[in-house]
Amino acid sequence: MEYFSKDMDRLVQELSRLPGIGPKSAQRLAYFLINGEKEQAYALADSIKKARDSIRYCKCCCTLTDGELCPVCSSAERNHKQIMVVENPRDMSAYERVGKYQGVYHVLHGAISPLLGIGPEDIRLKELMVRLQGEVEEVIIATNSSLEGETTASYITKLIKPLGVPLSRIASGVPVGGDIENIDEITLLRALDGRVSL
Amino acid sequence: MEYFSKDMDRLVQELSRLPGIGPKSAQRLAYFLINGEKEQAYALADSIKKARDSIRYCKCCCTLTDGELCPVCSSAERNHKQIMVVENPRDMSAYERVGKYQGVYHVLHGAISPLLGIGPEDIRLKELMVRLQGEVEEVIIATNSSLEGETTASYITKLIKPLGVPLSRIASGVPVGGDIENIDEITLLRALDGRVSL
Repeated sequence: MEYFSKDMDRLVQELSRLPGIGPKSAQRLAYFLINGEKEQAYALADSIKKARDSIRYCKCCCTLTDGELCPVCSSAERNHKQIMVVENPRDMSAYERVGKYQGVYHVLHGAISPLLGIGPEDIRLKELMVRLQGEVEEVIIATNSSLEGETTASYITKLIKPLGVPLSRIASGVPVGGDIENIDEITLLRALDGRVSL
Repeated sequence: MEYFSKDMDRLVQELSRLPGIGPKSAQRLAYFLINGEKEQAYALADSIKKARDSIRYCKCCCTLTDGELCPVCSSAERNHKQIMVVENPRDMSAYERVGKYQGVYHVLHGAISPLLGIGPEDIRLKELMVRLQGEVEEVIIATNSSLEGETTASYITKLIKPLGVPLSRIASGVPVGGDIENIDEITLLRALDGRVSL
C-alpha cells in the first residue's frame, strides 16, 4: 500500500494494468488525478465510458469508428478494390496522414504471436477473407516489420496466394534520413536484398 | 484526428493531459481501453471517480487518507513532536517503507517554483505554521534535492527559524551504492561540504 486510502490504492492498481504504465507512473498518475481539479478527473472517467460505449467497428474494414462504416469505406472517391492490411487503426491513420494512398484498408486489430498466444483466429482475418470473395485488384500487406508483423504477413500470404489475388508487401529498408551506421543488421540486409536497379 | 470517432479523439485528448503521457502514449492507452475488456475500462473509470470522491486530507499532516486523521497521525506510538516536512504523500510512503522514523509528517503537496508560478501560498505551509504553535521538538525538512525542493527548504527555514524551533535538513550526498564517476558535480560538492569526521 502506497497511500493511506483503499480507493486510492485501487486506482493505482487499475492504472498500472494499462500498457506501459509501471507502478511508479501509476502512483504519479493517481496522485495527479486525485490532487488536481475534480472536473478533469471526472472528464477522463466519463470519456473512457463514453468512448467504450459508443465505439463500433467499421462493418467493412474493422477500424474503430462512430457509425456503420468508417469515412474511408463510405467514400466514393476511394478505390475499393485495393485493400491495405494493417495491424491497428493507428497504422491506418499514419497512411491517411500521408494522404497519397487512394485504396481502402483492412484492420486486423493485432498480429499473430505464438509467444503471446495470439493465433490467426484472434485477429480480424476471417473478415478479410470474406471481403476477398468480392472483386479485389490488390492486397497490400502493411503489417509491421517486427517478428509478429512478419509472421502475420507470411500467414496471410499463404492464405491469399491460392485465391489468385495480386498480393504485395510494403518495402522494408533503410528509413529516409536514417544513418546507416546506426541501423540494425536485419534492416541493412533487407535493404540490400530489396535493392532497386538505377 | 487520429481515430474515426469523436469520442475516441476526446478520450485521447483527456489522456494526453495526464503528466508524462504524450500524444502517442495517449493514443495507445485509448486504443487499449477501447479494444480491451469492457469491464477493465469501466473499472478504471469508476475507480477514478470513487477515489476522487472519497479522498480527504488528513486534518493534521495533510496527507491523502480515507478518514479524518491518517494512520500515522492517529497512532499513539509515534512522536508527535517531531515533524518531517515532505513534498507529497509518495515521499512520506518512502520513509514509512524504511520503517525507522518514529515521528510524524507534514505533507506540503508541492514545492515552491517561481517558474511554474507555484508560490508559498499554493502549498500547505499555513497548516504547518498552525501546527508549530503547539509543542514541537524538531522540524526535519525532507523536500527533494531539486531546485524547487531547495527553494522550499530555504523558504521554510527563514519562516521557522525565528520561532526558535530546532530545524534540520536531511543529508545530501553520494547515494549508497552510487559510482562517484557517474555522479553530478553538485552532488559531489555537497558530499564534500557535508563530510563527516571519522
